[in-house]
Amino acid sequence: MIKVYGVHGSPYVRKVLVALDYKNIPFEIVPQMPFSGDKEYLKINPLGKVPTLVDGDLTLGDSKVICRYLENAYPEPALYPQNLTENAMADWYEDLCGGHVADLAAAIFFQRFMRPLAFKQDPDEELISKITEKKLPPMLDYLESEMPEEGFLFGDFMMADLSVVSPFINAAYAGYEVDSSKWPKFAAMFSRVKEVSWVKKVLEQEAKALGMS
Amino acid sequence: MIKVYGVHGSPYVRKVLVALDYKNIPFEIVPQMPFSGDKEYLKINPLGKVPTLVDGDLTLGDSKVICRYLENAYPEPALYPQNLTENAMADWYEDLCGGHVADLAAAIFFQRFMRPLAFKQDPDEELISKITEKKLPPMLDYLESEMPEEGFLFGDFMMADLSVVSPFINAAYAGYEVDSSKWPKFAAMFSRVKEVSWVKKVLEQEAKALGMS
Repeated sequence: MIKVYGVHGSPYVRKVLVALDYKNIPFEIVPQMPFSGDKEYLKINPLGKVPTLVDGDLTLGDSKVICRYLENAYPEPALYPQNLTENAMADWYEDLCGGHVADLAAAIFFQRFMRPLAFKQDPDEELISKITEKKLPPMLDYLESEMPEEGFLFGDFMMADLSVVSPFINAAYAGYEVDSSKWPKFAAMFSRVKEVSWVKKVLEQEAKALGMS
Repeated sequence: MIKVYGVHGSPYVRKVLVALDYKNIPFEIVPQMPFSGDKEYLKINPLGKVPTLVDGDLTLGDSKVICRYLENAYPEPALYPQNLTENAMADWYEDLCGGHVADLAAAIFFQRFMRPLAFKQDPDEELISKITEKKLPPMLDYLESEMPEEGFLFGDFMMADLSVVSPFINAAYAGYEVDSSKWPKFAAMFSRVKEVSWVKKVLEQEAKALGMS
């Protein structure tokens, strides 16, 4: 059976769990904290990041890579658009939001949520302000310009929709809310994605795991 | 005609130029420095990174995303393996080496090459040592374990081979050589990839652009 190394709460693990559930693929979660320094884990993922997927002899890191593999191995129901240019745009959104945007959101989450909890330290509010006031707004401006008036990016719910929203779910755990007066289409997308049943289910599991419910 | 925004010398632009040339796709380069703060450029790539590809109405950032698009739009000759698990591994190598490994190599390149040239400052040798002695070795250990005894990762030369080598080409510009006594299979792959005719051609263009020939 497919194994997913990771923990609930990671914006990346979340994507893989939704993909597996959406495609009705059986799997088990192997609890693994990111950056734990665990030498056995570093053998299968030299970055120490989560998730890692193990499917038989295949060992893959990175949520984008894993979700693409799952799409190719289990094409139905589809989580990526068939159209060539839409497919490329889905890749681009996933890369942008799984990269720079997720790094910014992760920094807020770390400062406000993990640092007080795990290290009994106050968050670095100066850093948080720099992110929320300088670094995130141009990203949100761009994403706002790409969002549809209603529905999802490519018609039906797909991985791209969760990819753009996923970092902001973590930022919201840490008290950052996307300003719907500045970025109305993005804020509406954020709400819609959280109501997708497969996403909702994983978010309920996360809330339990993070002690928020 | 396809436009590629970028400059010779970027490990990412290099990949896209090789892909276009390999597939015999006509294109033009629009000179664009990364992180220039150019507002017009930020409209098409909010990260300010290079390359960006513009093909008609399609505007894509990120070399992985661009190369995948080119593969899907112009499948022959192939630069990615057809086999499902090999295809996923190609994605994983490209993501790992275009992400963390490229960041490490870029830091060496910036310190040793760009900083003296553009800012008339000495390189931060302490940072360079931390990268070459602590951070790169586990990545090279992992890559060594994945390299074939001879030939390329998936038989014929493919994008994965260039992806794993590309950051180290930049590190070599800055004086870092992969130790062939510690990582013999990787060092051999490095040499092989540089001799692939499409790679060699782009490296010659780079040498001119960087004032090294």
